[in-house]
Amino acid sequence: MKTVVIKLSGSLFSFDKDYSQVKKITKTLDEISRNGYKVVAVAGGGKTARNMQNAARNFHADEAFLDQLGIDVSRIHAKILTTCTTNSCQDIPKTLDEVVRCLSSSKIVFTGGLSPGQSTNATAALIAERTKAKLFVNATDVDGVFTSDPRKNKNAKLIKSITTKNLLSKVIDDKMSAGTYDLMDLLSLKIIERSKIPTIVIKCDSGRIKSAISGRSKGTKITS
Amino acid sequence: MKTVVIKLSGSLFSFDKDYSQVKKITKTLDEISRNGYKVVAVAGGGKTARNMQNAARNFHADEAFLDQLGIDVSRIHAKILTTCTTNSCQDIPKTLDEVVRCLSSSKIVFTGGLSPGQSTNATAALIAERTKAKLFVNATDVDGVFTSDPRKNKNAKLIKSITTKNLLSKVIDDKMSAGTYDLMDLLSLKIIERSKIPTIVIKCDSGRIKSAISGRSKGTKITS
Amino acid sequence: MKTVVIKLSGSLFSFDKDYSQVKKITKTLDEISRNGYKVVAVAGGGKTARNMQNAARNFHADEAFLDQLGIDVSRIHAKILTTCTTNSCQDIPKTLDEVVRCLSSSKIVFTGGLSPGQSTNATAALIAERTKAKLFVNATDVDGVFTSDPRKNKNAKLIKSITTKNLLSKVIDDKMSAGTYDLMDLLSLKIIERSKIPTIVIKCDSGRIKSAISGRSKGTKITS
Amino acid sequence: MKTVVIKLSGSLFSFDKDYSQVKKITKTLDEISRNGYKVVAVAGGGKTARNMQNAARNFHADEAFLDQLGIDVSRIHAKILTTCTTNSCQDIPKTLDEVVRCLSSSKIVFTGGLSPGQSTNATAALIAERTKAKLFVNATDVDGVFTSDPRKNKNAKLIKSITTKNLLSKVIDDKMSAGTYDLMDLLSLKIIERSKIPTIVIKCDSGRIKSAISGRSKGTKITS
Amino acid sequence: MKTVVIKLSGSLFSFDKDYSQVKKITKTLDEISRNGYKVVAVAGGGKTARNMQNAARNFHADEAFLDQLGIDVSRIHAKILTTCTTNSCQDIPKTLDEVVRCLSSSKIVFTGGLSPGQSTNATAALIAERTKAKLFVNATDVDGVFTSDPRKNKNAKLIKSITTKNLLSKVIDDKMSAGTYDLMDLLSLKIIERSKIPTIVIKCDSGRIKSAISGRSKGTKITS
Amino acid sequence: MKTVVIKLSGSLFSFDKDYSQVKKITKTLDEISRNGYKVVAVAGGGKTARNMQNAARNFHADEAFLDQLGIDVSRIHAKILTTCTTNSCQDIPKTLDEVVRCLSSSKIVFTGGLSPGQSTNATAALIAERTKAKLFVNATDVDGVFTSDPRKNKNAKLIKSITTKNLLSKVIDDKMSAGTYDLMDLLSLKIIERSKIPTIVIKCDSGRIKSAISGRSKGTKITS
Repeated sequence: MKTVVIKLSGSLFSFDKDYSQVKKITKTLDEISRNGYKVVAVAGGGKTARNMQNAARNFHADEAFLDQLGIDVSRIHAKILTTCTTNSCQDIPKTLDEVVRCLSSSKIVFTGGLSPGQSTNATAALIAERTKAKLFVNATDVDGVFTSDPRKNKNAKLIKSITTKNLLSKVIDDKMSAGTYDLMDLLSLKIIERSKIPTIVIKCDSGRIKSAISGRSKGTKITS
Repeated sequence: MKTVVIKLSGSLFSFDKDYSQVKKITKTLDEISRNGYKVVAVAGGGKTARNMQNAARNFHADEAFLDQLGIDVSRIHAKILTTCTTNSCQDIPKTLDEVVRCLSSSKIVFTGGLSPGQSTNATAALIAERTKAKLFVNATDVDGVFTSDPRKNKNAKLIKSITTKNLLSKVIDDKMSAGTYDLMDLLSLKIIERSKIPTIVIKCDSGRIKSAISGRSKGTKITS
Repeated sequence: MKTVVIKLSGSLFSFDKDYSQVKKITKTLDEISRNGYKVVAVAGGGKTARNMQNAARNFHADEAFLDQLGIDVSRIHAKILTTCTTNSCQDIPKTLDEVVRCLSSSKIVFTGGLSPGQSTNATAALIAERTKAKLFVNATDVDGVFTSDPRKNKNAKLIKSITTKNLLSKVIDDKMSAGTYDLMDLLSLKIIERSKIPTIVIKCDSGRIKSAISGRSKGTKITS
Repeated sequence: MKTVVIKLSGSLFSFDKDYSQVKKITKTLDEISRNGYKVVAVAGGGKTARNMQNAARNFHADEAFLDQLGIDVSRIHAKILTTCTTNSCQDIPKTLDEVVRCLSSSKIVFTGGLSPGQSTNATAALIAERTKAKLFVNATDVDGVFTSDPRKNKNAKLIKSITTKNLLSKVIDDKMSAGTYDLMDLLSLKIIERSKIPTIVIKCDSGRIKSAISGRSKGTKITS
Repeated sequence: MKTVVIKLSGSLFSFDKDYSQVKKITKTLDEISRNGYKVVAVAGGGKTARNMQNAARNFHADEAFLDQLGIDVSRIHAKILTTCTTNSCQDIPKTLDEVVRCLSSSKIVFTGGLSPGQSTNATAALIAERTKAKLFVNATDVDGVFTSDPRKNKNAKLIKSITTKNLLSKVIDDKMSAGTYDLMDLLSLKIIERSKIPTIVIKCDSGRIKSAISGRSKGTKITS
Repeated sequence: MKTVVIKLSGSLFSFDKDYSQVKKITKTLDEISRNGYKVVAVAGGGKTARNMQNAARNFHADEAFLDQLGIDVSRIHAKILTTCTTNSCQDIPKTLDEVVRCLSSSKIVFTGGLSPGQSTNATAALIAERTKAKLFVNATDVDGVFTSDPRKNKNAKLIKSITTKNLLSKVIDDKMSAGTYDLMDLLSLKIIERSKIPTIVIKCDSGRIKSAISGRSKGTKITS
């Protein structure tokens, strides 16, 4: 059975608003799972995490503590996702080993961050590595990787395919849009590179996740 | 050394707004601690918890699961409080035994809920019982227990003192304002009664917490 | 698959005497399980727990500590039950989440109490709520709920059906027999009420448990 | 600070009877602790454990499971002991490492068994080894090691001093009374031998424990 | 399904050399598992453990700490073994209860030592007892039990069959080769004796393990 | 009290050779601790880890699993270090929160790696961040950062001071010696940069560690 790892953008988890998108996405994950894939979905922390991190930073908490706060919130998000489908592992794993254990049931594994110093993107990449995933889908709040920041530059174009090496040098050179760091940070890229994990960056939307799994991605493909 | 247990209203934890009140209250707790009290402060879940619980209820989660979500959020609130003062236990206890262990350091112990089926009020009452506390201060978002709902009835009067027995029958008879349940639910009252824990209900505000500890409470006293 | 939760009276666990009843009951649970039900059985603490609690109370332990002692003993009882049938989860869950995890195996889950401040009855009710049980059977040491204490009043009659609301007011008004508190305490009733869990109170006996599951209960039915 | 490890006979924990002896012994341990010793007291399982083990054996449980049942009961006994004095570590350690951690507080550490396959005697010997104890006091339900079984042979004499080697060969040769195994099993003796732990076997009684610590033992001394 | 427990000699784990033997043995275990056996394999600590123990002993660590070091190393060895076959439980159990839990999956369970004071041989015997194993294979670095030390005495003969009682007395009387203690220590033998576990001592080699399981052992049989 | 975090090169832990250097270094750490510093020392995995990782890679283990193996070995190294001085926390922390908890005792905290995807260097940097350390000393097996690989180029010169930004671009540009990656990987540098942690790279030797703490470092200083 093939494994796919999907990072779900933290922007999905705004529970003071509408949450129909959450339902749609879990329905899609359920279909993917029933089509014979092992699915790990990694929830981000989103606005709730950022608000709490801002408060704690104001109280002089250190950066690693703030990372942990984000992890805690992302785990609650993962827990809420488990209520959307009975085809899900009821435990939220706290270590890579626990992810592996949960996955042995063939149910969808929902998880949040695992360790301070790692973005949830990097965590998702590590999980893809540990589970020898066939695909890592990074579902973000933009359409993919652009030639420049699409919010500032009308002429910015979506990049259809880029190598980890090129993306890495772009991230480091700061030539790319400010948001790029969030899309794919250094550690994520290093992991994708060392284990040659096929990776796609798309917008977090049930339709695009489905497309990405079936090989008709509309976002950016990262190759080794 | 005397122990005091203070339940902090979930309304305190609105991190998208201003958080100066959080700072003031932790400063007050610090003073109380340095004046020779062992302090346990129990954080509520507030709006963040309620939003998440609404989402999960919409996804058909059961009530006990929703209780657990509230506990998870309240623990993060407790964790954030630890960053406001170095005079605090860095661990957030998850069981009564862990509360006792943390308290042995004489630092302020911040905690959230402990078990589904218990409001954070009931948890605070249990902690007061387990630590043989001299006082349980329930800092809520109203001024104390009223003769009727003060938001609906202008003539509602604050009750200065009431026995657990009378309060219990009022809560059950539904004669009191709708919000009463939140102030003091059945389980909390049963625990206060069985262990005769001196209890005060006040508004969650640094000044009133200080007054309550020094014996000049402006809220409602619950006696056995 | 439907879930049933069965609270087993602590009086069952008198291991200095005869334990044939324990065997019969686990055999019945096994049949129920093989007939397509998911079964959770919650063991009480019984005399062993009460003796230890009396000792610890004499040593000035607080009430919450005594609750924990009772939980510890009830967990050992649950563990012993696992040896009666290979069709049982070998772990004794310590939290609601662990109950859910164990139940995913479809084997009988034996558990004891979970949290101080909760009777094993209330724990069983919470488990019924968390697992969306179709039936909660409270197997006690009396035949059901009576109009008055049957040990004192010859004319006491077994009540065949009662609403949670009526039972709650009776429990609070102290109009019922002293033992009623043990049958169904406030917290248990509140949980049954909030989640509308179909509940039956019967004597702890293999035959009556079988009858209750098959819909021919001889005890008291609690309705919403 | 010197460490002493004291094994307390399971016969002490008959909570259906009188428990004044428990109080006296914990008072003695408290005095020893306040006189500058680090104290670890290991509780046995006694009659409660044996009754449960008999039941489980009747249900065809394996021997290692029965060992674990005994450990569980002995841990509850240890927990009850913690309520007798505030000068005690509130945690009951479950591993040797946890014993070491608890002991760092200089409070009395109460513990039960730690691992199946080890009698509580052997556990106490291992703790003595791990904490580099100056003395291991085995407080049993007989006066010490006898030349033959004192319950069968009137002429049986208490042995004042014996080497581990001689005691070991006696235990193996079955030349000694049946109860000897309980006093000092093979594993205990092997541990005492490999680490040359000064050991005394006495009757479990507050006066004799005090004497043993102060060097005026009335029981049997085991030397290397 | 029948359970077999196989102790793998620590000498197998010399990862600075060649590790083809490790592969062969896990392939054999896999075959045994697929032939319908539940398999538990207990890894020893070997040279890596001994080197670390020598260092720690030089730093004045106590013997129980050294035992724990050996356990830690043996657990890493077990973890490495899990990478050789997908037909293995991914968790390394740390208690007997965890061994039982892992085994419920019917995959091969790899484990190391479990508790200080027990050799990995004794641990393997305890696991055989707890899982009611049909056979305990002790795969060592010699061919079996000899009449005297084969490394010193050319005329030493392999003993084909010996009772636990005879082997026990030989071990105690020190009449046997020095290495005997390693083959079968006192605690192992006591456990084998109390639960009458069929036991075979062979050289750690894939062919001989296969033979032992199929009833054509070339080593020493220990009988009750 | 100021905190210093010291990463100890894995090359220190060759227990098949001489271990006098280990003793010297722990003696130095002890002096630093007694001079009023809180000390965290992070042990590397060294040759033992690399041998095991090579074996597991040969068995087709994934990279994240290999990271975990290295962590496991480094934790055993940390454990062995605790035996060298009684002025050490007996627990080996497994998370950042546990490091903080251990450090509250003011004893030396020995730890290994914490999370896959992080080198022990990055872990040490995270600990420095989480504990708001005044200094992070990276004690490696070379003298510091060089202009080129000193093993290949005789004219390579030790760099006395370099900014995180410059070092980062050098590491990325591959302009530096191959060993540089090991000295300071990307994640370590990112953490040092985001929290402006004063950092020194020196050879792992008791004298140089002492010098570094007292402000007379002979290695390379990394500045923000």
